[in-house]
Amino acid sequence: MEETRYLRGLETVRKLDEGNAARLEEALKGIAPDLYRYIIEFAFGDILSRPGLPVATREIVTVSALAAMGTAQPQLRVHINAALNVGVPRAQIVEIFMQIAVYAGIPAALNALYLAKEVFTERDANGPS
Amino acid sequence: MEETRYLRGLETVRKLDEGNAARLEEALKGIAPDLYRYIIEFAFGDILSRPGLPVATREIVTVSALAAMGTAQPQLRVHINAALNVGVPRAQIVEIFMQIAVYAGIPAALNALYLAKEVFTERDANGPS
Amino acid sequence: MEETRYLRGLETVRKLDEGNAARLEEALKGIAPDLYRYIIEFAFGDILSRPGLPVATREIVTVSALAAMGTAQPQLRVHINAALNVGVPRAQIVEIFMQIAVYAGIPAALNALYLAKEVFTERDANGPS
Amino acid sequence: MEETRYLRGLETVRKLDEGNAARLEEALKGIAPDLYRYIIEFAFGDILSRPGLPVATREIVTVSALAAMGTAQPQLRVHINAALNVGVPRAQIVEIFMQIAVYAGIPAALNALYLAKEVFTERDANGPS
Amino acid sequence: MEETRYLRGLETVRKLDEGNAARLEEALKGIAPDLYRYIIEFAFGDILSRPGLPVATREIVTVSALAAMGTAQPQLRVHINAALNVGVPRAQIVEIFMQIAVYAGIPAALNALYLAKEVFTERDANGPS
Amino acid sequence: MEETRYLRGLETVRKLDEGNAARLEEALKGIAPDLYRYIIEFAFGDILSRPGLPVATREIVTVSALAAMGTAQPQLRVHINAALNVGVPRAQIVEIFMQIAVYAGIPAALNALYLAKEVFTERDANGPS
Repeated sequence: MEETRYLRGLETVRKLDEGNAARLEEALKGIAPDLYRYIIEFAFGDILSRPGLPVATREIVTVSALAAMGTAQPQLRVHINAALNVGVPRAQIVEIFMQIAVYAGIPAALNALYLAKEVFTERDANGPS
Repeated sequence: MEETRYLRGLETVRKLDEGNAARLEEALKGIAPDLYRYIIEFAFGDILSRPGLPVATREIVTVSALAAMGTAQPQLRVHINAALNVGVPRAQIVEIFMQIAVYAGIPAALNALYLAKEVFTERDANGPS
Repeated sequence: MEETRYLRGLETVRKLDEGNAARLEEALKGIAPDLYRYIIEFAFGDILSRPGLPVATREIVTVSALAAMGTAQPQLRVHINAALNVGVPRAQIVEIFMQIAVYAGIPAALNALYLAKEVFTERDANGPS
Repeated sequence: MEETRYLRGLETVRKLDEGNAARLEEALKGIAPDLYRYIIEFAFGDILSRPGLPVATREIVTVSALAAMGTAQPQLRVHINAALNVGVPRAQIVEIFMQIAVYAGIPAALNALYLAKEVFTERDANGPS
Repeated sequence: MEETRYLRGLETVRKLDEGNAARLEEALKGIAPDLYRYIIEFAFGDILSRPGLPVATREIVTVSALAAMGTAQPQLRVHINAALNVGVPRAQIVEIFMQIAVYAGIPAALNALYLAKEVFTERDANGPS
Repeated sequence: MEETRYLRGLETVRKLDEGNAARLEEALKGIAPDLYRYIIEFAFGDILSRPGLPVATREIVTVSALAAMGTAQPQLRVHINAALNVGVPRAQIVEIFMQIAVYAGIPAALNALYLAKEVFTERDANGPS
């Protein structure tokens, strides 16, 4: 049963970003390997695998939340990539962050957009995306 | 030109929630009437009227941001209603707030869900929505 | 296996506050019953049941985090009660919130202390605690 | 020496709001009386009594910070009153909160303005201010 | 009319920091050029150009808000410079950030002061300011 | 009397981290030396020297608060070290940050854990700790 949650989570995380699970596992290795497992099982296996929202909408929710909070730039970077990977167009990500200015202030919008610009540039440098 | 922005904003805000502009105007009357005008012109006329995102997606962005911030419960209430008004199903709003638990913590998710429950109950009491 | 996590979580949540699981289930009934289950399984069954920290220390962590955030007063109220239930003395809870003034500012400390005062008064009214 | 800090703080807090020290002492009595003393000594005696900023400017700093944070509405209410008491005009307080919209988002500005409106109305009801 | 707002905003932003509009335009070029225009028009043309507060007071509001939030260090750096440019003395900026310790905690004050120290050093290196 | 507070604060800060007072004094020299003194006197001399909580518990409170806030990474680094210095085991710090995921979200937990990993590595490089 746990195995089911883990495998379902792994499938979901890989749909969002092929290398993300491996990077997260590596980052938490030697410090909090159980948290890696909980994140795959709970965040990706329980919540993000639920059928109630299309995966692209889920990434819109995540980048909106993280941009508004302004305290999770490394995770916002991961999820800008994930949003692009599941088909959210660059122009929509930009629209989302412009809208964040209304609700969380212009600095939150700018900092999210500067990060998006970096992500777009990296992806261009790595070939078509 | 300003008139155009104001009228476009008014059209957008009314699509989201028929009575919201009037309530906002009333609330800011005698204290900051110019801010009422800026909100209609900038937030609704400039940003939320842009064609780059469907209006339902824009409300998904807004409720995600406000739920994650946890400092804007009155505005979150307004936008849960707006989201419903533009066709976001109740079940999707619930999914969004469950997902907020992953990124902003379980208390942020719970407080948004309790608010959604109140809004759903009010709308049920006021007839079909 | 899931059943194990759920039962372990239920045991932990009951140690913290006998009635809390039932209140949470009731509050999420009809809106997000799955989130109730995830909270019992993940928050209480996976994390808070881990042996690495004494349960009283875990409640100290929780009230410190919630008081510093300042966006989760309903949950802070629950966990002030839970802290008391697992043996954190009132005087220690007061010390914790005084210390929050240093790191999150005096308003955060005051708002947590006002809540603690309410909880202490309620408990006094309900007989010895 | 401590006595000096306490007396200097008391003088400063009374300049801001005649009744505030007594209300704070009452609120913290029986829960954290030492924090009352630290607030008078450190916040009012050490920091707010420093000659480097005019007292009206200090209140502008405080209401700006609290409005932007959005997690300290009771303290924001106290300091809107204090700002008025030391001569910041109502119109300037409104300008400050309108400006907060730019940096912390429109909801933060609205919630501060709604509070200011309540404070202005209370003061009108209590006679000229 | 729009042109008026844009030009008024440009005049205000240049008073605060000669090069800021150009840097912002460059930073948003190729990602969100419309947001550049909205910021000049709304933030600088509508709000910051209003006559109700002296420009130096407006910068005091901004640095207070950003220091308290703690999520907008790049923008805080811009506005420490802007505050200095419109005549807020270094010593007053330091007083403001010391006061932030009371309301948002000592870490928020320290991080703002470390940034101020960098800005002061940069300006010293670039000749008298 | 002030001297007493300063000396008591210095004794406490040195127990937490031998070099921290000197580093803080150096960092604030030439910008806000009085704040250095207030921090030693108020934060360390008044609050952290109080007998009501064991010093290790105080560090648990601090790292919990700072990890949840997510806006004070330099100070979180200092207090991860301080927690270790006063006997909080590495494994407990990891447990605390895993628990933060429940209340402040997974990104807050991850960012605190990544910082802890850096601190642990630095300490390993500097010999046994």
